[in-house]
Amino acid sequence: MAKKPLALSQVYRLLEPGPVVMLTTAAKGRVNVMAMSWHMMMEFEPPLVGCIVSGRHYTFDLLRASRECVLNIPTADLAKQVVGCGNTSGRRIDKFRKFGLTPSASSRVAAPCIDECHASLECRVADTRMVARYNMFVLEVLAAWIDRSVRQPRTLHHAGRGVFLVAGGETIRLPSRMK
Amino acid sequence: MAKKPLALSQVYRLLEPGPVVMLTTAAKGRVNVMAMSWHMMMEFEPPLVGCIVSGRHYTFDLLRASRECVLNIPTADLAKQVVGCGNTSGRRIDKFRKFGLTPSASSRVAAPCIDECHASLECRVADTRMVARYNMFVLEVLAAWIDRSVRQPRTLHHAGRGVFLVAGGETIRLPSRMK
Repeated sequence: MAKKPLALSQVYRLLEPGPVVMLTTAAKGRVNVMAMSWHMMMEFEPPLVGCIVSGRHYTFDLLRASRECVLNIPTADLAKQVVGCGNTSGRRIDKFRKFGLTPSASSRVAAPCIDECHASLECRVADTRMVARYNMFVLEVLAAWIDRSVRQPRTLHHAGRGVFLVAGGETIRLPSRMK
Repeated sequence: MAKKPLALSQVYRLLEPGPVVMLTTAAKGRVNVMAMSWHMMMEFEPPLVGCIVSGRHYTFDLLRASRECVLNIPTADLAKQVVGCGNTSGRRIDKFRKFGLTPSASSRVAAPCIDECHASLECRVADTRMVARYNMFVLEVLAAWIDRSVRQPRTLHHAGRGVFLVAGGETIRLPSRMK
């Protein structure tokens, strides 16, 4: 993917529609990737993103240790890899190798971008006060990258149990004063 | 809409794909409705939902006063009403009347369900500790309703500035161990 920088003020437009993301982490000499749908925008700029990462996941350990991650946004051609990442644990396998994902160097964090994803958001953990009670991390997006040649990204929206709604078909545009 | 009860364990399947919701509140002798996309699942059962409601919105006042609300999920036929609710303030107008929305009585909370929405989640505010810093409310879903005759709900997913991706077209189903 030929990703170019995206203004931080525009990041909400990627996450607000609710796509599955592939969250990458690096710590303890390991990299990992998990599929995640429990996230939301919390602030426009600097962009803050809330997300829930279960304490059972290996990513939880790596995220807490490194306090950094990348949110990569996959499209429908990566659906099998997304489900594969959800069905396995990085404690036991190298998911990048297993699922043919290509790590590429990030600009601000140690966690890698996934080259096959059309957008990647480099993040630092900005607040851990909700981790103990809710497994909730507040992330600040430090750098954002997008491949603009992907015109109508067929993002995946998980409706549970491996069922994904695919965006990129019908679109509605209405005059709005909302951001 | 002929809505029937939905098991609370299944609520995440409605919100996880990231649809715009219409949040209704009732307090101080007023009802109101706002469009919202900044929400996420936080727990399966009882279902917890995090959401951000700006302190500038009239809904913020009503939500804080009543500590109750309903998350109603609209489909594409309600796109104009969604944007209309986003472009106006309940401080000045009765949005139900203005946009032809029909309030129907909820079972557990004072805030009304929106009859035109195929799914409605009655909620209480479960945690306000993140309100001061992030305008974030943690909601517990007390009762859930769905019209199962709506087979592939064409939910709206806001990509900013009045652009909505519409679900309900292409769907992918893969064997998954994920909930």
